[in-house]
Amino acid sequence: MDELLLSGYLDGCRDELLATLVDWLRIPSVSADPAHASDVARSAEFCAGLMRDAGLTNVSVLPTGPGGDGTGAPAVYGEWLGAGPQALTVLVYGHHDVQPVDPLDEWEGPPFSPTVSNGVLRARGCSDDKGQVLMQLAAVRGVLERLGGLPVNVKVLVEGEEEVGSPHFEDLLARLGERVACDLVVVSDTTMVAPDVPSTTVGMRGLVAFDISLRTARSDLHSGIWGGTVPNAALVAARLAAALHDDRGRVSIDGFYDDVRELSPEEAGSLAALPFDERAFLDKAGVGYLTGEAGRSAYERTGSRPTAEVVGLHSGYGGPGTKTIVPATANLKLALRLVPDQQPGAVEQAFRAWVAEHVPRGVEVVVQRHGGVAPLVTPVEHPSVRALSRAIEKVWGTAPLFERSGGSGPEEALARALGAPVIFLGVALPEDNFHAPNERLDLSQLWRGVLAAGELLVELGAQEGLVRARPGHPGP
Amino acid sequence: MDELLLSGYLDGCRDELLATLVDWLRIPSVSADPAHASDVARSAEFCAGLMRDAGLTNVSVLPTGPGGDGTGAPAVYGEWLGAGPQALTVLVYGHHDVQPVDPLDEWEGPPFSPTVSNGVLRARGCSDDKGQVLMQLAAVRGVLERLGGLPVNVKVLVEGEEEVGSPHFEDLLARLGERVACDLVVVSDTTMVAPDVPSTTVGMRGLVAFDISLRTARSDLHSGIWGGTVPNAALVAARLAAALHDDRGRVSIDGFYDDVRELSPEEAGSLAALPFDERAFLDKAGVGYLTGEAGRSAYERTGSRPTAEVVGLHSGYGGPGTKTIVPATANLKLALRLVPDQQPGAVEQAFRAWVAEHVPRGVEVVVQRHGGVAPLVTPVEHPSVRALSRAIEKVWGTAPLFERSGGSGPEEALARALGAPVIFLGVALPEDNFHAPNERLDLSQLWRGVLAAGELLVELGAQEGLVRARPGHPGP
Repeated sequence: MDELLLSGYLDGCRDELLATLVDWLRIPSVSADPAHASDVARSAEFCAGLMRDAGLTNVSVLPTGPGGDGTGAPAVYGEWLGAGPQALTVLVYGHHDVQPVDPLDEWEGPPFSPTVSNGVLRARGCSDDKGQVLMQLAAVRGVLERLGGLPVNVKVLVEGEEEVGSPHFEDLLARLGERVACDLVVVSDTTMVAPDVPSTTVGMRGLVAFDISLRTARSDLHSGIWGGTVPNAALVAARLAAALHDDRGRVSIDGFYDDVRELSPEEAGSLAALPFDERAFLDKAGVGYLTGEAGRSAYERTGSRPTAEVVGLHSGYGGPGTKTIVPATANLKLALRLVPDQQPGAVEQAFRAWVAEHVPRGVEVVVQRHGGVAPLVTPVEHPSVRALSRAIEKVWGTAPLFERSGGSGPEEALARALGAPVIFLGVALPEDNFHAPNERLDLSQLWRGVLAAGELLVELGAQEGLVRARPGHPGP
Repeated sequence: MDELLLSGYLDGCRDELLATLVDWLRIPSVSADPAHASDVARSAEFCAGLMRDAGLTNVSVLPTGPGGDGTGAPAVYGEWLGAGPQALTVLVYGHHDVQPVDPLDEWEGPPFSPTVSNGVLRARGCSDDKGQVLMQLAAVRGVLERLGGLPVNVKVLVEGEEEVGSPHFEDLLARLGERVACDLVVVSDTTMVAPDVPSTTVGMRGLVAFDISLRTARSDLHSGIWGGTVPNAALVAARLAAALHDDRGRVSIDGFYDDVRELSPEEAGSLAALPFDERAFLDKAGVGYLTGEAGRSAYERTGSRPTAEVVGLHSGYGGPGTKTIVPATANLKLALRLVPDQQPGAVEQAFRAWVAEHVPRGVEVVVQRHGGVAPLVTPVEHPSVRALSRAIEKVWGTAPLFERSGGSGPEEALARALGAPVIFLGVALPEDNFHAPNERLDLSQLWRGVLAAGELLVELGAQEGLVRARPGHPGP
């Protein structure tokens, strides 16, 4: 691989990069725990130092919270705009906060005392996401060293609240405004199928959740006196949940699939080529069988197909033993994952109509919507995905397969706020224990990631067609 | 009504009986609240005084709890066995404990400061059940005064834990053994349809409850990563609950109706003659509509037909907002009300087979049975019911209609432990607010009840055929 731009650079600084990452990983930047607020702040300062060291300018630790009042955890921003206003501007996204470490007793060593063994780094945050942020910054530093400049303008935004659901991220983007304007977002916070099966995420599902409160009676009724002839709220809720899917596992909401786009033949072929070991999949999920939409593979079901899951269902007595009541109220929580081109608003309308049709008259129903994230997809035919594919192929020797992520993250907010496509250069592996004890990072993946991030900058620099029209810039 | 045995007696003591009842009602014998344990004990002593005053002998306050250790609330027992070993022995059952008073702010006055207004007594416990116990004791006293003896042997057992589910009652009956042996049980703890529509309960439903714990995965799964292809415990539970009834409202458990006995033509005719005001029924239940087994009336559905109700259904997230999980566990609690000749054991077997058939393979299921009370019915053609009907008709001027109670109480334990039929002389009214604020008792019903209880002793005394064979007694 000595033809790669950063091969030589990397050979000279692996130890230093690893030592730096280890120092960063010693900071327990757990955003979910207020007791770690100062650690999250230290982590932000550390990240700012990495940005300056990489050659970025205007580096700043950004307070977050309502109006930027600092009640949120700080983000970090840096930029290199030397490519000029005519050139492509790429915004790199990552996060420096980490997940809590519970259950601590399942860790093989202290989560914030990193260890390296057999080419594997172990520590909370090593793969999700400090290692992958470092990978991007190392590539920027390397390309600047090798070429004296970058082929594109680069803005780097490293969030501090990703692990708690990015509560202030949209507000931050709005406040940053033009400062984060870009043509393309590059996210490094995902996984690949395997070291020898490189892959890239090309989409994330959207999400809209509903809370359905049902009331069938003024109060719980005595089942001896009334049972058998009065409506039972638990049964009404159960029947509603049971009606959510037909017997082929398809969501029964009228019109739910109207806007669902089928995969392009290329993407469908790539998805079908992803290796799938059902036994390993079952073991990892800890389930006894797979289910879902008939005629669709597990990857389709979790990535490219919309779903409706019951998140919670609560009604009546839940204590020890039993109680002779007919429950009067029930609460049903559903989460609907959306795929292109479904939109939360249209799905909400269809859902409300479905509920109205399925709940018996005489039952009080209140449907509340929670959240609403549109699905995000960058077509595999998009020039930015082509550029990313070439960069990955140059390093791994194989073109990447395309994956759809079933989740919904801040990437959608980025895409929406910045109006830019999103691509994913993620080098962690499925076995890297994101959010779990013994989080790990395969160092060979990290080093290949640095090389690929460098190649990506080069590839993107050759993509004039990606530059969008913007104020003061005529566009291509 | 001057031809009735106790008319003159009652004319001479209404004020005294009412004053006595008011004194008893001042004692807050709330068995559910340990803070009232000494009040329950005082109530038992008061009741023992009433028994002695009525002319009963061997009156005793009986400690309850495991082995009679006194950790339970005391019962009270008294007897009059002067009719001799050849005569019928009747056991009268009632209870001296009362329900809690919450919500207190809905009471028009203090629950334990009885008031009388327009012929209605108001206080916690006045109708359920102190008033009806006093009614029976007053009748015993009156008949003894008038006749110098009773036409039958009478044993009176007044429980102190009925309102908390009679946890030590079976143990008490077992310890009392021969002391409570009898030919017939008379319960006074129920209601009539209306003052001008006398009725009597002839059966109570049985009860068997199940707790079904389901596990579909080792732990809750992220709905973004896994949603759409892994089993969802909440959905499995919901589908199980939804499968419990067919679309005609019949319980779908295979064999569930095999042992259900249809009503005799006489009882069916009586049940159909019970007045039913749907609007009032809906208002009282506080529901918007009625449901249940197709082709059956509300009285049948709540009394003479078996039912399956969901008592509780809990799975997944129940807090504010939403959470992106696929729940791994669910708990479903069901209560099945049984009617003659269903038996808890057979129903349990059928239920377990049904669960096994309806839960997908690969889901862990644990079914626990709670309780098991067989249904209780005394045929309307039984001589004891005939005697009761005559007694009621003599006082009310109309023969009683026959009702089935949907509930399941200590009466079944009595019937089972004593091997005796159970009849119900209950004079409370549906509007008497059992278990609710502003419990009331129509005094004209109380006085008619005293007269009827007296007539019942006379009628039973003429029923040689009811005396059962027993040790030392050849039987009829």
